[in-house]
Amino acid sequence: MDDHAAPSAAPPTFGFGTHPTKYRHWKLSFEGEIGRLTMSVRDEEPFKPGYVLKLNSYDLGVDLELADAVQRIRFKHPEVKTVVVTSDKDRAFCAGANIHMLASSTHPFKVNFCKFTNETRLSIEDASAKSGIRFLAAVNGACAGGGYELALACDEIVLIDDGSSTVSLPEVPLLAVLPGTGGLTRVVDKRKVRRDHADVFSTLAEGLKGKRAVEWRLVDAVVPRSKFGDVVAERARKLAAGAPPKQKVTAGAGVSLDDVAPTIDGDTLSYQYVTLKLDRAHRTAELTMRAPDAAPPADEAAYVAQGVALWHLRAFRELDDAILRLRFHYEDIGLVILKTRGDAAHVLAADRALTAHHDHWFVREVELLVARVLRRLDATAKSFFAVIDEGSCFAGSLLELALAADRSYMLEDPDEQVTVQASAVNGGAFPMAHGLTRTQVRFLANPSRADEALAAAAKAPLPAGGADKAGLVTLTADEIDFADEVRIACEERVSLSPDALTGMEQNLRYAGTESTETKIFGRLSAWQNWIFIRPNATGERGALTMYGKPERPHFDTRRT
Amino acid sequence: MDDHAAPSAAPPTFGFGTHPTKYRHWKLSFEGEIGRLTMSVRDEEPFKPGYVLKLNSYDLGVDLELADAVQRIRFKHPEVKTVVVTSDKDRAFCAGANIHMLASSTHPFKVNFCKFTNETRLSIEDASAKSGIRFLAAVNGACAGGGYELALACDEIVLIDDGSSTVSLPEVPLLAVLPGTGGLTRVVDKRKVRRDHADVFSTLAEGLKGKRAVEWRLVDAVVPRSKFGDVVAERARKLAAGAPPKQKVTAGAGVSLDDVAPTIDGDTLSYQYVTLKLDRAHRTAELTMRAPDAAPPADEAAYVAQGVALWHLRAFRELDDAILRLRFHYEDIGLVILKTRGDAAHVLAADRALTAHHDHWFVREVELLVARVLRRLDATAKSFFAVIDEGSCFAGSLLELALAADRSYMLEDPDEQVTVQASAVNGGAFPMAHGLTRTQVRFLANPSRADEALAAAAKAPLPAGGADKAGLVTLTADEIDFADEVRIACEERVSLSPDALTGMEQNLRYAGTESTETKIFGRLSAWQNWIFIRPNATGERGALTMYGKPERPHFDTRRT
Repeated sequence: MDDHAAPSAAPPTFGFGTHPTKYRHWKLSFEGEIGRLTMSVRDEEPFKPGYVLKLNSYDLGVDLELADAVQRIRFKHPEVKTVVVTSDKDRAFCAGANIHMLASSTHPFKVNFCKFTNETRLSIEDASAKSGIRFLAAVNGACAGGGYELALACDEIVLIDDGSSTVSLPEVPLLAVLPGTGGLTRVVDKRKVRRDHADVFSTLAEGLKGKRAVEWRLVDAVVPRSKFGDVVAERARKLAAGAPPKQKVTAGAGVSLDDVAPTIDGDTLSYQYVTLKLDRAHRTAELTMRAPDAAPPADEAAYVAQGVALWHLRAFRELDDAILRLRFHYEDIGLVILKTRGDAAHVLAADRALTAHHDHWFVREVELLVARVLRRLDATAKSFFAVIDEGSCFAGSLLELALAADRSYMLEDPDEQVTVQASAVNGGAFPMAHGLTRTQVRFLANPSRADEALAAAAKAPLPAGGADKAGLVTLTADEIDFADEVRIACEERVSLSPDALTGMEQNLRYAGTESTETKIFGRLSAWQNWIFIRPNATGERGALTMYGKPERPHFDTRRT
Repeated sequence: MDDHAAPSAAPPTFGFGTHPTKYRHWKLSFEGEIGRLTMSVRDEEPFKPGYVLKLNSYDLGVDLELADAVQRIRFKHPEVKTVVVTSDKDRAFCAGANIHMLASSTHPFKVNFCKFTNETRLSIEDASAKSGIRFLAAVNGACAGGGYELALACDEIVLIDDGSSTVSLPEVPLLAVLPGTGGLTRVVDKRKVRRDHADVFSTLAEGLKGKRAVEWRLVDAVVPRSKFGDVVAERARKLAAGAPPKQKVTAGAGVSLDDVAPTIDGDTLSYQYVTLKLDRAHRTAELTMRAPDAAPPADEAAYVAQGVALWHLRAFRELDDAILRLRFHYEDIGLVILKTRGDAAHVLAADRALTAHHDHWFVREVELLVARVLRRLDATAKSFFAVIDEGSCFAGSLLELALAADRSYMLEDPDEQVTVQASAVNGGAFPMAHGLTRTQVRFLANPSRADEALAAAAKAPLPAGGADKAGLVTLTADEIDFADEVRIACEERVSLSPDALTGMEQNLRYAGTESTETKIFGRLSAWQNWIFIRPNATGERGALTMYGKPERPHFDTRRT
């Protein structure tokens, strides 16, 4: 187990943005309403040296491109109604996450890698559910593990009938880990495979094909090679025909997403609207989001014409990038202090525009992106404290940061200049993973208070007293105590066990109902994390470690 | 970490049954409709030598008595409408699970201990929800960790206001583990404490008291010492007045539960209706349940008069005991083969009686107990295969075993003597932890098929062909192949990683919605299991290991 290894001091070396012109592993093409996302992994170009990406197996580099492609289709190609996900390798659709990459990764990297790939698959489902883009997995070869989990994220799965290609989840029998990228959950909860069939399937290393794969609901159709292309094309057209129309799509109206990357100066990462300052000695970071510099254009055409410069899009893409950097590059940072700066009136004006033009496909995509970024924050294994202090603008979309935080501290200033304010977006534009808003979760005990709190905070800016009364902030303190109170809380937080905090936060953040998404992060990932550090998987003689070696793995046989 | 230790070869030394006359740690008393369950833990009588049970801290011995008391109140004291849970220690309500016991236990024991204590607390909530027995935690002293989790399982919590007594969940700050006996889940999901308040509370080792404890919904009332007894008595009366009436309760009608314990002969454990045969070499066990020897009396009075001898009660109490033994004593057994023997007609007759007399409080309690035992089976970290072979009687209540199993194998015999059959109980008498029946979970893809399958199987016994068609069994084979097929499946199963199987099964068994109970076992326990084997908790310098020592624990600071 690598868990006892000293934290690596290596500097962060990679970014998260990419572009189709830079893709190494995917081909993206379009024909009218049909997009085609073709997996074409280059064996010899792993993200980190040390393994070969055989048979369309993937690593973080491959998945960053996939995540970019899905996002890009939504923004750049609003005309697309179906995306066919397939492979250009002979007899290999996708072999799943690269085993040697996994086996040679630290536990934190494994967990972060799986979380990211889960989010990518969830973004596919989000595109289907919210943007009406249907995904069709055209499984034209062997489809194993994470490969099948990718197919499971699609709306339909068509498997080639070539006598050999199967779908399989061989993680349990071959590697002693779980199909943790949503596999187990999606098999029984999304595709509603009978649990006993799922049990047989998930222990069958070679997988299933043919009639039984269809009967057991593992795939939607099995098609001979000779007809495969035609059937896929026909199904893609049908899916497109059934997709809901997008509003106000005009030819060539797609928005090209540019690269979002910070300027890094020592321990400060600067974006246009986001600044991330690391305090490595204290294991904290300060993440500041800034309001727009002005109100947006009132006219819809002018508002939409801002494209990638539109504040919500730019600012939350920057936040997304900062969160990923915090996860992957700054493992030792335990606590992120969320701050805001700027004119709340501009945030509220931006929110009004977002709400007013919500029926425009592009504006809707911006709103959906903000929601996904906030869900990424919810699922991040760091503590978040919002600090509502002088110069802050926790209004509307930025108030959502305080509601997403584990706690919020608000300054009681005598002039009542420090305030929070709500806007329409807090009422449902940015649902959490289980579909509830962050105010609904906050007021589960008394659901009507969620509306009351938002109404009070929408009517006028609330200073500390009012915000506390409305239940929107955790703790308030006056100018004499505020700085000390926050400092002590931060010091206490980072003194606690990082693991216990992760477990605690993941249990406290998602009160209320559960969804496939929260089951994946709450139940499946928690079990997967456990199994990842069990000697049976990652010990010296564990199955993941021993994979590909002639000796059999050794198991501690005690059932736990 | 004790995880690498060789499996202990020590023989099982303890049973699970007890009786009020044998209680060491609890006092049980009654005054009309009000029961009183007083925690009075004897410091010097731990379940295993090596630690002292200070301040009403508990171990398995204490919890076995509590579980027994809750069960016994339901069967022996149908007149009881409120149970006051309190302590007779000065200034100590309950300090939670004994830390030294936990720190000195193996990982499998810790997990099994927590699972059992969770089931005990869930049985309190089951008694409240299903039997109309309200529980009032009269917290008359310090109430920490598992002590507060016990209070959380009650319907109401009254905290004494004596200047010092608090409620607290100090697990994260003091021990680097989670309040895993439902604490985190119940705080936000049951008591609906605001998540930011829960965050502050769960990191505050000293806990909260007074007005803030009430405002934050952690307790229902805070009462000065001088009025504590009166207020508790008054609230207990009110709770009793609001409890739904029980049907057909007559004076002295309570049923005394006798001890259920097997005769152990080598590797065979024999009860009246249950036999458990261990095959240690193959890491499997065969658990056989037998049908009643005759149909039950038709007359309600005579049926009820059977008391503890009533087949459902006896047989499923035996199953419960066998499951607990499998969990605690036979950690190396990975697979349990479920079999049945006897006359299906007698099972169906017993089911008809259970259904017909369901409005009698005692019969209802029997039904609820059977449901709890089956839920205990669902939550057990062993694989279960049902083998439906010659002489079997998988009918009604016993069919539920096949539906609970991970898989079922059914013999196709030429004479079609091997059958399965449904009864009314399969339609909802024994819900799973999330409230769905096992047939509903099975047919999530097509809910009407659940009813169709049960209707077909209720009309007449279904031989293998019909059972397969109805979707009630996993695999069928004829006499030539059956034995080999089952043998190979068993061998394959036990060859897989025990950890991976546990994680897989816990993700496949509970498709569909989630409840507090499934969140506790699926989400909270999974995170707890992970944290229990992290060096930050149980490593040489982990917080649980170092508790009580002068040195500070050492944490790997990487957030995962």
